[in-house]
Amino acid sequence: MEKFEVYILGCGSALPTTRHFPTSQVVNLRDKLFMIDCGEGTQMQFRRSKLKFSRLNHIFISHLHGDHCFGLPGLISTFGMLGRTAELCIHAHRDIEKYLNPILDYFCQHLPYKVTIVPFDTKKPEVIYEDRSLTVTTIPMKHRVPCCGFLFEEKAERNHIIRDMVDFYKVPISQINRIKNGEDYVTPEGVIIPNSRLTQPATPSRKYAYCSDTIYNEKIVEQIKGVDLLFHESTFAQNEIPRARETYHTTARQAGQIALAANVKKLLIGHFSARYENDLIFFQEASEIFPNCQLAKEGLCANV
Amino acid sequence: MEKFEVYILGCGSALPTTRHFPTSQVVNLRDKLFMIDCGEGTQMQFRRSKLKFSRLNHIFISHLHGDHCFGLPGLISTFGMLGRTAELCIHAHRDIEKYLNPILDYFCQHLPYKVTIVPFDTKKPEVIYEDRSLTVTTIPMKHRVPCCGFLFEEKAERNHIIRDMVDFYKVPISQINRIKNGEDYVTPEGVIIPNSRLTQPATPSRKYAYCSDTIYNEKIVEQIKGVDLLFHESTFAQNEIPRARETYHTTARQAGQIALAANVKKLLIGHFSARYENDLIFFQEASEIFPNCQLAKEGLCANV
Repeated sequence: MEKFEVYILGCGSALPTTRHFPTSQVVNLRDKLFMIDCGEGTQMQFRRSKLKFSRLNHIFISHLHGDHCFGLPGLISTFGMLGRTAELCIHAHRDIEKYLNPILDYFCQHLPYKVTIVPFDTKKPEVIYEDRSLTVTTIPMKHRVPCCGFLFEEKAERNHIIRDMVDFYKVPISQINRIKNGEDYVTPEGVIIPNSRLTQPATPSRKYAYCSDTIYNEKIVEQIKGVDLLFHESTFAQNEIPRARETYHTTARQAGQIALAANVKKLLIGHFSARYENDLIFFQEASEIFPNCQLAKEGLCANV
Repeated sequence: MEKFEVYILGCGSALPTTRHFPTSQVVNLRDKLFMIDCGEGTQMQFRRSKLKFSRLNHIFISHLHGDHCFGLPGLISTFGMLGRTAELCIHAHRDIEKYLNPILDYFCQHLPYKVTIVPFDTKKPEVIYEDRSLTVTTIPMKHRVPCCGFLFEEKAERNHIIRDMVDFYKVPISQINRIKNGEDYVTPEGVIIPNSRLTQPATPSRKYAYCSDTIYNEKIVEQIKGVDLLFHESTFAQNEIPRARETYHTTARQAGQIALAANVKKLLIGHFSARYENDLIFFQEASEIFPNCQLAKEGLCANV
């Protein structure tokens, strides 16, 4: 199976702790890297991860709170010092220009590469990135400021040829591409060999959904239905539900409820508030509702 | 002796490594804290230090390179979330407003405390802070952009009264203050008791000099003569002396030479380039010239 992993660089929330960095993740699909959010310290955590800086060309910023974007200036500067030449695209709410442009103007006048800001609408789902193996779609969140999660969907592969059957029916090479596309094979004698005898289904395409920051919001369930891995924020435990509502965040139990309703395969929770000494309370609450649950942790690499 | 310590939060240079954070230090004089520089990740390191955020009211930024100031937005935001109400003064080159103001405007609209930028001239030494126990004076550096080091000088204490002698000469309480200020005592009979018989000299006032970033520059020697502790940048080892000149940085050996010429009591070196796997080379080079030398290290607390 091709590589599809999520690497946690930071999974704390706004206040720093000695245990957690603010939010950042790297999605690794077949050794192409995609960053989600970039809190302070991301470049140090990125370096620790041993992932290659040069494999990253796209950064997706969920929303413009400092704990999700204050690592950008350092990361951008460092890439410049390392002699990067490839364009770096930053996908975010359009206001990011108000924040980044003055910094780029002052600190990054001689950057050897281009930083391109690609603004997205946060109100409705939108495909904001596409290549031959992946699409990234926004998932509108409900937070105090405009905010989107991101759905990473591997594109469906074509069916795999069964070599023994192709040999057996003496299928000419010129026909292979058609068969991969799902067509049947017609022998020179006019016999139809059904596609299902010549191919086996490709590995099902995998999906990763990142949902942070947001108040408990069942509207997202439709869009994340059945994903292989759901990262959902879990800033508070159930004892702080009024605080969660007030600040537009989710509790661990609510994250479990979303995972259950969306029938996802696995739940990963993070964005933990600094007020909890021990993250186990989040695991206990979420896994009561949705057992296949894991706590995010700096350095964790989760398979999608 | 009253507390006078330097706490190293980060001592790397521009490129992050897994060993070093970018530059930041906290000077602790009698439990008042003063921050020097604020690279990315400073707030996390500050939290790890267990020093109290609320004791910090003044930040001194040597120059506007990212590795010395990209931690400010996170620190300022965090102080706001923690409900700080006391004014925070940031002493820096006036250009800091171009960097900080757009960030404060966008991210910190409802900050419960005031951030005051106090610009300083980087061309000549200037007292930029003073209270009853301390003065802070800029030390002009030679770097690629306007840059200053900082000289922290404890104010001279008044002489200490020798209680037995004061009792012996029956000095009235009303005279004590004058005697502390150095005056002699005249008895009702007109006998002059010299001040030196009634007092002993106060502990000598201590000095800490922070010199970073700078090319090797003997002009600073006069200003830092005899300080108790000198922090001097040592970005490169002697094998990279052309690179040091080109980038306006100092080698470890040169840092040792400055310490020797200034006849300081102790040398602390830092701002290590990411290209060296092991910092020991800096120690070897500097201590050959100036033996009372120590390597900076995250978490180190050095007495002045």
